[in-house]
Amino acid sequence: MENNLKDIQAEPDFREIDIDKVGVKDIRYPIKVLDKKNKVQHTVGTINLYVDLPRTFKGTHMSRFIEILNEHRREISNKNFKEILEKMKEKFGATTAHLEVEFPYFIEKAAPVSKARGLMEYTCRYTGSLNSELDLLLEIAVPVTTVCPCSKEISDRGAHNQRGEVRVALRLDEFVWIEDIIETIESSASSPVYSLLKRPDEKYITEQAYDKPMFVEDVVREVTIALDAMKGVRYARIEAENWESIHNHSAYAYVERK
Amino acid sequence: MENNLKDIQAEPDFREIDIDKVGVKDIRYPIKVLDKKNKVQHTVGTINLYVDLPRTFKGTHMSRFIEILNEHRREISNKNFKEILEKMKEKFGATTAHLEVEFPYFIEKAAPVSKARGLMEYTCRYTGSLNSELDLLLEIAVPVTTVCPCSKEISDRGAHNQRGEVRVALRLDEFVWIEDIIETIESSASSPVYSLLKRPDEKYITEQAYDKPMFVEDVVREVTIALDAMKGVRYARIEAENWESIHNHSAYAYVERK
Amino acid sequence: MENNLKDIQAEPDFREIDIDKVGVKDIRYPIKVLDKKNKVQHTVGTINLYVDLPRTFKGTHMSRFIEILNEHRREISNKNFKEILEKMKEKFGATTAHLEVEFPYFIEKAAPVSKARGLMEYTCRYTGSLNSELDLLLEIAVPVTTVCPCSKEISDRGAHNQRGEVRVALRLDEFVWIEDIIETIESSASSPVYSLLKRPDEKYITEQAYDKPMFVEDVVREVTIALDAMKGVRYARIEAENWESIHNHSAYAYVERK
Amino acid sequence: MENNLKDIQAEPDFREIDIDKVGVKDIRYPIKVLDKKNKVQHTVGTINLYVDLPRTFKGTHMSRFIEILNEHRREISNKNFKEILEKMKEKFGATTAHLEVEFPYFIEKAAPVSKARGLMEYTCRYTGSLNSELDLLLEIAVPVTTVCPCSKEISDRGAHNQRGEVRVALRLDEFVWIEDIIETIESSASSPVYSLLKRPDEKYITEQAYDKPMFVEDVVREVTIALDAMKGVRYARIEAENWESIHNHSAYAYVERK
Repeated sequence: MENNLKDIQAEPDFREIDIDKVGVKDIRYPIKVLDKKNKVQHTVGTINLYVDLPRTFKGTHMSRFIEILNEHRREISNKNFKEILEKMKEKFGATTAHLEVEFPYFIEKAAPVSKARGLMEYTCRYTGSLNSELDLLLEIAVPVTTVCPCSKEISDRGAHNQRGEVRVALRLDEFVWIEDIIETIESSASSPVYSLLKRPDEKYITEQAYDKPMFVEDVVREVTIALDAMKGVRYARIEAENWESIHNHSAYAYVERK
Repeated sequence: MENNLKDIQAEPDFREIDIDKVGVKDIRYPIKVLDKKNKVQHTVGTINLYVDLPRTFKGTHMSRFIEILNEHRREISNKNFKEILEKMKEKFGATTAHLEVEFPYFIEKAAPVSKARGLMEYTCRYTGSLNSELDLLLEIAVPVTTVCPCSKEISDRGAHNQRGEVRVALRLDEFVWIEDIIETIESSASSPVYSLLKRPDEKYITEQAYDKPMFVEDVVREVTIALDAMKGVRYARIEAENWESIHNHSAYAYVERK
Repeated sequence: MENNLKDIQAEPDFREIDIDKVGVKDIRYPIKVLDKKNKVQHTVGTINLYVDLPRTFKGTHMSRFIEILNEHRREISNKNFKEILEKMKEKFGATTAHLEVEFPYFIEKAAPVSKARGLMEYTCRYTGSLNSELDLLLEIAVPVTTVCPCSKEISDRGAHNQRGEVRVALRLDEFVWIEDIIETIESSASSPVYSLLKRPDEKYITEQAYDKPMFVEDVVREVTIALDAMKGVRYARIEAENWESIHNHSAYAYVERK
Repeated sequence: MENNLKDIQAEPDFREIDIDKVGVKDIRYPIKVLDKKNKVQHTVGTINLYVDLPRTFKGTHMSRFIEILNEHRREISNKNFKEILEKMKEKFGATTAHLEVEFPYFIEKAAPVSKARGLMEYTCRYTGSLNSELDLLLEIAVPVTTVCPCSKEISDRGAHNQRGEVRVALRLDEFVWIEDIIETIESSASSPVYSLLKRPDEKYITEQAYDKPMFVEDVVREVTIALDAMKGVRYARIEAENWESIHNHSAYAYVERK
């Protein structure tokens, strides 16, 4: 029946403008992602799918993106990103395909003293582009605590501290677990944060963080050094942001390593 | 070991101020919710847990909320809300407990002509308070299409239309499936929206919506009439919002039914 | 010319459903508001305007809301809210009119030691409803610092602290300056926050906050006591939220005073 | 007095990591910007200020960013961006300085038939970096209406349409008014959107848009052609996004022109 309806998208275009990316954006879908401990994890993705459109065509058949998503949402990981992108190129006859998936990722974490367990949420994002080569970027946002070294030094007692966030964007040469990257980042701040802490844990974290004061400048430098040393990391962008407890704005630092 | 550390929260307070709600807010956790078709659905909740705090105590032991969440996240539904709230009252020795859970809920929907299947996301929220009685509010946000009756009437061709959203907040006397409420709402707009539509579906929806033009005023009235007639609905708030295609602001209508 | 086009909104409706609120939502407009120090302040408002619609009419003439907004945006304050609402009732022949205006409000604040000056932003919101009587609610969000009393007590050094926010919603019997309410709230936390601080200020604030540790429970109680004592405050809701530096969620407390 | 307190930031660092950007982020400030019609416009900016930090220093004196902002907020435009960035480089002894300012910009617009006037809001953003050369990017987001050509073609009546947004990022060789860029973009969609429309305007816009159906692909192509032809535009990124009225996700297209 679809054949009876004119296919406007397939008509020729004469404006001589290639379109770099065209597709669907901000579609939310339940997905499964790889999990180091439990093999697979159920979560919810916010997803963009794009292809390039050569100058000769008027439009793109958007429903095909959803059909591809339906086929592949049972597992999305850096392991099958290339396969999905190849399907997109094939189905659209495209030169380049792009797939972006952002999702909350949960890891069970034990408190440092009581060993009480709770789940921590980390926002992750895969951004993949396939032309002849696959370019895959993995982004992870990790909440941390930072104690201000200046405040500690100049004050007779206490030191201002706050929640911060470290965000990294990585190109990898080999498979690396999200869990391992997060652990590396958390150990580069004044302290990790947790969902469940009992009093002995709170004492431990307060003292640990006070003993390890760090500016956003220190945090990005420590994360940079750790990622420089991590096997498989070919490219890295590192951001640290503090929601300053004494201001209503953020302190921010950024390093790019090619 | 926790016993050796002073329990500041448990100390007496002399300011004579009862606190209505105290607890943890905006914690994200993977949860399971009831699903009409598949029995259970994995999703991600944004969760608040509060209790009241009488004037005689200084503070609340926040970690206990996370412990309760850990125990119950395997299933959260209007069926076990009361049980969770009772646990909260018991664990905190509280008079009133509050639990709020917001989550994206996914339903597989067939396109009207091609019957192609795709997943639609609806934002749902349970807000429960337990004193001696349980007060449970179910909120659902449903995206819809609306065609403007005025634009259709006065224009020689076409009619402006747009995506809108209907949001309802309901108190129920008996169990009602989220799926049934959503279907009722979708049939009260110019047309439902879908994730996957083929060309014959697009033709069908365009014509159906054009034949059923509705203001936000019409939408809230139709939803009101449908919910008034729905078995089990004791109280309803109904909002309709259009992201107007000819403005950069919304048209909005609201009805409350006690 | 408008007369030649059929007025669909003015047609009769037979569904017997009164609509509580109908109008325009989330329109952004440059506005002027009263300022204690500079008489008037330029800012940007996000504005909702609604009226009720009796069951006998099909729709509302939405463009009239924008006309009213055009006339009155040169000054919006609790002083002329009633006048605007009366215009709305008159223009729409409505029984009830609602006007909601949210805007960032800026106050110049001197640092505690250096007296260096910077601007602080506070989100404010007026919500007014006029039936026979005016019901006007003023909401203000004030960022603050809080030091955790438990962490301070149990730790050998340091104490976790963070940015928090106190939000109040007030019904007033007489005119009260936004500036005075903000000052009251800021003095009820471990410390105010500032945009511009030099090193001696940072030392002062760190020590002051460490000497005045407060849970969210303490903050809402102190703000409650201060607002109970403030002349002109007839009703108050008080919320305190901490973006905990050791968690990825918030601590929260809420008091309502009728 | 500040001299008595140790300057931790000025201490040497031995980790050998240059920091690309360090500074303050997301500070909101009332600002004035150039306005084609009224010379100057009051608005509210969300502002980031960064400099680079060489490997030899431990930290940055963040308060200096706020001092610079205090001095220059009375006028911010592409005319004095370079001057502000030079001050930043000088004050911090930096090699590179970055200033990012995002703000709502308001333009009075007459409806097409009734000529009724209302204000339209456009989100604008200047991003400037100064090393030896100034690199200045101007971004503007313009809401528009789009009618779907496929839906129009295959349907016996009506055509789905929706609000969309065109976002451009431009590098300019010479001064171009924001107003002129916005007008160019608005004439490249099915129709502009307005805050205030009377019935004859609504008829005009509905018919005009129906007569000019455009995919996101068409919109980016038309804007690309118009910007290619605009004097002073050296580089352009063009995005079009439709909040599809028949889906709960967006259609999206992107072109980059170097």
